[in-house]
Amino acid sequence: MRKPKIVVLGAGYGGMITTVRLQKLLSVNEAEITLVNNNSYHYQTTWLHENAAGTLHHDKTRLNIKDVIDTSKVNFVLDTVVEIRGKEKRVILKNGELEYDYLVVGLGFESETFGIKGLKEHAFSIANINGARQIRDHIEYMFSRYATEKRDELLTIVVGGAGFTGIEFVAELANRVPELVHEYDLPREKVRILCVEAAPTALPGFDPELVEYAVKFLEKKGVEFLIGTAIKEATETGIIVSKDDKIEEIKAETVVWAAGVRGNSLVEESGFEAMRGRIKVDQFLRAPGHDDAFIVGDAALIFNPENDRPYPPTAQIAIQEGYNLGKNLAVLVRGKGELEPFTFDNKGSVCSLGHDDGIGVVFGKKLTGWQAAFMKKIIDNRYLFLLGGPLLVLKKGKLNFF
Amino acid sequence: MRKPKIVVLGAGYGGMITTVRLQKLLSVNEAEITLVNNNSYHYQTTWLHENAAGTLHHDKTRLNIKDVIDTSKVNFVLDTVVEIRGKEKRVILKNGELEYDYLVVGLGFESETFGIKGLKEHAFSIANINGARQIRDHIEYMFSRYATEKRDELLTIVVGGAGFTGIEFVAELANRVPELVHEYDLPREKVRILCVEAAPTALPGFDPELVEYAVKFLEKKGVEFLIGTAIKEATETGIIVSKDDKIEEIKAETVVWAAGVRGNSLVEESGFEAMRGRIKVDQFLRAPGHDDAFIVGDAALIFNPENDRPYPPTAQIAIQEGYNLGKNLAVLVRGKGELEPFTFDNKGSVCSLGHDDGIGVVFGKKLTGWQAAFMKKIIDNRYLFLLGGPLLVLKKGKLNFF
Repeated sequence: MRKPKIVVLGAGYGGMITTVRLQKLLSVNEAEITLVNNNSYHYQTTWLHENAAGTLHHDKTRLNIKDVIDTSKVNFVLDTVVEIRGKEKRVILKNGELEYDYLVVGLGFESETFGIKGLKEHAFSIANINGARQIRDHIEYMFSRYATEKRDELLTIVVGGAGFTGIEFVAELANRVPELVHEYDLPREKVRILCVEAAPTALPGFDPELVEYAVKFLEKKGVEFLIGTAIKEATETGIIVSKDDKIEEIKAETVVWAAGVRGNSLVEESGFEAMRGRIKVDQFLRAPGHDDAFIVGDAALIFNPENDRPYPPTAQIAIQEGYNLGKNLAVLVRGKGELEPFTFDNKGSVCSLGHDDGIGVVFGKKLTGWQAAFMKKIIDNRYLFLLGGPLLVLKKGKLNFF
Repeated sequence: MRKPKIVVLGAGYGGMITTVRLQKLLSVNEAEITLVNNNSYHYQTTWLHENAAGTLHHDKTRLNIKDVIDTSKVNFVLDTVVEIRGKEKRVILKNGELEYDYLVVGLGFESETFGIKGLKEHAFSIANINGARQIRDHIEYMFSRYATEKRDELLTIVVGGAGFTGIEFVAELANRVPELVHEYDLPREKVRILCVEAAPTALPGFDPELVEYAVKFLEKKGVEFLIGTAIKEATETGIIVSKDDKIEEIKAETVVWAAGVRGNSLVEESGFEAMRGRIKVDQFLRAPGHDDAFIVGDAALIFNPENDRPYPPTAQIAIQEGYNLGKNLAVLVRGKGELEPFTFDNKGSVCSLGHDDGIGVVFGKKLTGWQAAFMKKIIDNRYLFLLGGPLLVLKKGKLNFF
């Protein structure tokens, strides 16, 4: 009897949880599971801002995929997806092709620059391990040049966006500054971290009381906020911003864009119906018109029935999608049992402000300070536990609670 | 009674040893000693190539001047020398002026580019702590960019010159490569270290048997030598070399010029008779026509009576000069005793090949391998002992003998 072929594209939160769930639920004889990823490692996207700031080494953020999957049950293919041919049930890779009976697409996000001039060329984005490491090294290199060149803009870091990523990143940067000042013999007062946000508030959508806590906390640490200020252009020497119709240039050698993400453009290019790279999936995470193709993670567009607005793409929802999908795929493979519709159980969210502070709403309760930081670590460790059990928590977990 | 004023310019090997010798020999009432330096720290110039390669942190190479000098006897001035007015017996600093009765000039070396086009703009030199740190960070930044840009020249390091500094530097680089390959997930075979030397041999003037040992050792570690090859130009994208009238371009994002030094140009500009910034001093290290101005270190030009050629500028000779000069200044201040002419006691030299190998001639005996490396550390530690006693050796010494 021919075993059904399940192909999982992308080893992010969604793809990984789908895979480990499948390998738990199915025996070797029930299905042929293949996981495709362009790196040999999986990484925690929500920790990348720490790698970029240099407060956490990227080896802590990533783990070898083969250390987590059961290679007797899952075939790992290190390759890059080029195209999905839904009608032929085939996936074209850079170095090969795969056929599938069931496809899981978890190809993640891309940076969305909203057509702002120069951003692609002159700004970094915290997109993956390579990009985060490069930001860390770029900042260090600029700081190392200050001693000989003495140009203030070498020590200016502009972060575009005061959303979740932007805030968490500037908080890590603020914690890194004292180390950098020592390493490069710098005058502290010359180092500037600017956070530019077009919306009328930082962390739009977050509880205003918590936002105020975060902004005050970060300002105390030296972060400068330019709220209600739009980045008009990124140039070789910095950015051009506008506020109340006033145009201003800010010189900065480091500009990091943390204000927008969209789904992976490959899904659009492969003919799936998508909005900004995100596919509106049905209750079983299926792409419209594709009974055998499922979308998890940042490319899955799911609407909150309470307010009819899409859930923002987060690790939390991706993990829950993977968990649900793994089980549903096992049902499909076996041809018995019932599919369980996906519903998002929002447990809240925590925005870290460095490793020892934060803000958040968890199970409907507002948290600030060390309680929020503590909860953030619990969330991070819980994911590792789900992925690889207690040993993985010990190896890669955030255990610096105090 | 007015105390004679001794002003020491520069806290390099020569200036520091002169100063600590003076503070040992003279009591507080005998002279007013002032040490001027443009940094609050002294550093070991001969270790800078390790900082630049990233195999040793620069904080190990430098020490706070105030931790070594006796501040009850020596007045330390953190400032930059602008001009020496020999006739007025005055030194103009950026933020002040100093009068002297005796002047010690130990302002060190500058990189000499021999007019090669583009070197000043596009090549680094291992000149001081700031420069060395910047080279380390530049290499790291180029390597970090490889993952996204995939351009081979990001991983190519060209070192101009296979003299002492060039050889010691490529050896440290070769030791650093495995670390860099791991940190940046690089294919080892893409990383290139090229050592370009215009002379017909590496380490010209060194024992040929030892040179062969060094070259073979380094080639085994992946260093490529281009001997008899002249750098014609440094450009934005690399260097242009010529060998046997054949012109070739080598693409490289990192070019370090380690092939020439000259004395500090300030001494020439101040009207001292000099050749490439070096002043031919008399037997008491006095500048011609200046009975009260003494030159130590790289700017002092002293001829070897055996072959009538100038001694190359080394730490060893600078240290011996400072030791001699400190004693002679004490004699002059007291107005009794006899001046002792300076003679260079060449104890030999060791060229390190990383921390655990090397070549050298010490007390006339050829050394290779761990014996040479061991001797190099003895030499380094001996200097620290001379400068600050056993505690300084413990704090900053090279104690990783095995």
